Amino acid sequence: MGQTLIEKMISLKLGRDIYKGQSVFVPVDIIMGTDGTTPLALKVLEEYNINKIKNPEKIIFVHDHFAPPKDISTANLSRMLDQFAKKFHITSYKEDRGGICHVLLPELGIMKPYDIVVGADSHTCTYGGLGIFSMGIGSTDMACAMATSKLWIKVPETIRIKVSGNLKSGVEAKDLILSIIGMLGTDGANYRAIEFCGSTIEKLTIAERMTICNMVIECGAKAGIINIDKVTEQYYYEKGIQDCQRIEADSDANYLETYEVEAEQLKPQIGCPYSPANVRNAEELIGTKINQVVIGSCTNGRIEDFRIAYQYMKGKQVHKNVKLILVPGSHNVLMQMEEEGMLKDFIKSNAIISPPSCGPCMGGHMGVLADDQVGLYTTNRNFYGRNGSPSSKVYLSNVSIAALSAIEGEIQVPEVN
Amino acid sequence: MGQTLIEKMISLKLGRDIYKGQSVFVPVDIIMGTDGTTPLALKVLEEYNINKIKNPEKIIFVHDHFAPPKDISTANLSRMLDQFAKKFHITSYKEDRGGICHVLLPELGIMKPYDIVVGADSHTCTYGGLGIFSMGIGSTDMACAMATSKLWIKVPETIRIKVSGNLKSGVEAKDLILSIIGMLGTDGANYRAIEFCGSTIEKLTIAERMTICNMVIECGAKAGIINIDKVTEQYYYEKGIQDCQRIEADSDANYLETYEVEAEQLKPQIGCPYSPANVRNAEELIGTKINQVVIGSCTNGRIEDFRIAYQYMKGKQVHKNVKLILVPGSHNVLMQMEEEGMLKDFIKSNAIISPPSCGPCMGGHMGVLADDQVGLYTTNRNFYGRNGSPSSKVYLSNVSIAALSAIEGEIQVPEVN
Repeated sequence: MGQTLIEKMISLKLGRDIYKGQSVFVPVDIIMGTDGTTPLALKVLEEYNINKIKNPEKIIFVHDHFAPPKDISTANLSRMLDQFAKKFHITSYKEDRGGICHVLLPELGIMKPYDIVVGADSHTCTYGGLGIFSMGIGSTDMACAMATSKLWIKVPETIRIKVSGNLKSGVEAKDLILSIIGMLGTDGANYRAIEFCGSTIEKLTIAERMTICNMVIECGAKAGIINIDKVTEQYYYEKGIQDCQRIEADSDANYLETYEVEAEQLKPQIGCPYSPANVRNAEELIGTKINQVVIGSCTNGRIEDFRIAYQYMKGKQVHKNVKLILVPGSHNVLMQMEEEGMLKDFIKSNAIISPPSCGPCMGGHMGVLADDQVGLYTTNRNFYGRNGSPSSKVYLSNVSIAALSAIEGEIQVPEVN
Repeated sequence: MGQTLIEKMISLKLGRDIYKGQSVFVPVDIIMGTDGTTPLALKVLEEYNINKIKNPEKIIFVHDHFAPPKDISTANLSRMLDQFAKKFHITSYKEDRGGICHVLLPELGIMKPYDIVVGADSHTCTYGGLGIFSMGIGSTDMACAMATSKLWIKVPETIRIKVSGNLKSGVEAKDLILSIIGMLGTDGANYRAIEFCGSTIEKLTIAERMTICNMVIECGAKAGIINIDKVTEQYYYEKGIQDCQRIEADSDANYLETYEVEAEQLKPQIGCPYSPANVRNAEELIGTKINQVVIGSCTNGRIEDFRIAYQYMKGKQVHKNVKLILVPGSHNVLMQMEEEGMLKDFIKSNAIISPPSCGPCMGGHMGVLADDQVGLYTTNRNFYGRNGSPSSKVYLSNVSIAALSAIEGEIQVPEVN
């Protein structure tokens, strides 16, 4: 029976043919936890009197959700991570050398082609853009993975999405995934994998692929996956990994559904309150007043994203009615922004430069929205109350729209051609 | 009867001779409030049904204590300020164009020689370094000042401190004021003014004078004052204010106490937990392990302070066990750091660059200390629990010690000569 790419990947790890619906105990290559979720995993380990960690070199802690800590409680979460990391020789990245977990891990070059990576953060699916089966897990599962280097998973069914043709200039990977989430709905891919393929996908950069896979969780997917190709091989080559033996989905693989998307038809999209699936053509929102713009997050906080923002912001001033918060996804992204000369102009434009972190994405610090305020964010979620006051609203967009709108003081959409 | 400088300044404003102990209704030239304190003043106005503000052009709001907001509550405080400011045509500075109130106001050039300035923040005494009678007030007093442009004050007695000779290289203005606070104790100058004079004071820069006057509140003083001289005239000249008519304390002025300090005797000082008056020679603390270093605040967050830090940090790396948080005192300070090429090296050293704000000084956000953590801060207060967990500790130092110690991972003191 033909296999999907995800089935092939799991089969490769287990040395036997695996199909959707099976429950399997898979080895995991990397286990990631943040200051937001790991403390719960550590409590689970404590509850079960587990005093040993298997393969600490496979575990990474990242301080990103509340970094630098905003209060005693979050400071103590961060301290708990560090103390545990020290005891068990686990690498722990603070914001001074780290950043957002999903921006940092791909920079580190610790993941290999077709690895299985789990993280106690829902957007761990990001690494699907690198040909990795990566998934967000709960804190209990994280504890299990830390103790055993394995995890029980049910092999997901796969939805295949083939995207063909050229994206118009001014249309970003973010628009493609917003459009797909709009099409599938927030529960349209529950516990399924989404396999992206087609000529459009092949032309995307690694950063764009990660933007796409990052947001598959917004339609409920367990994982997103883009197979390894020349672009991915080049990424791995630059990380010193040259063994990119490829596998492919079988031509008779059993997909749950297959969609075909024409890239050329796609216009810039905006995820309206209160759901990333509440998608409208961005042009319908032109003129919407905004109080705050955020460019950053594991969705759009990479150097490639700030290069796009820079095109719109260089020599311009942020509108006086708007607060623009730029959150470099990692310490390396911040350094690169400086080296490329962008940081200077961003500061001159009156943008606020946050330390590398999740920033205000989950309403946890660094620019929480007040009553009735309206935000335009390049992040991934705009649920009721997520970003601050329950009466605040957040629109989700690509980077171009966010940058241009910060200058204009209202939602504006760059020309598409 | 002879008058002290403060008595002269108040007399100048009221057009009649005023002496210590009198209660007078003085006109105020600038009224400043922050996001931390102004909301209470606005509630007072509301309670008394006061719907009119006198001279809104004299009022300044600054968002610095929780900027960018860390939660819905602080976001709503900030929003309250902005809504009130808009209604009454008051200028409101957010962190994207502002900074810490006491760094921002002197940059703006809105204060004139011998002005009376009040602010709903205890460190409003900072502007004494500019020859201004400035004092921190409560939120109720702020409401009164906003409604009337006047304030009842009791004319303070004056303690005169004459500092003579040269400060050794490696000894900063911060060491001088820490030493004085140690000498007077935290209540040694309660509701008194401290008049600084002498050859050492005359040689200090405006930034250094502000560092000194900033901390007089730590020994309870109502105000610190350094008379206008050539250095101050130059400051005002650069702000476009050329009318610097000088007044002087009378030779037979009635001082409560007079102290003479020999600058050459002074060694670097450290304010130990849990009081800025708990001062010891810094060399006694050498080797003390630290988790976090903060360089910033209204005491030491000016460009001159970062220039000092830069001397120690250029080309160096922050110690792996230490988190260094640099908090530019204002947007202008951040821009200047960038222009002078410091920002690049600070980022490379793995320092965390906070947006301009009060930062972790009052334990409110941006690096709150966890249980048992030890900080070395260039800030002004280290009371029990102020900077985070009640079991955390903060040492207060000058900028050189802070920068060097961040690199060394423990308290180290630069050579003094």
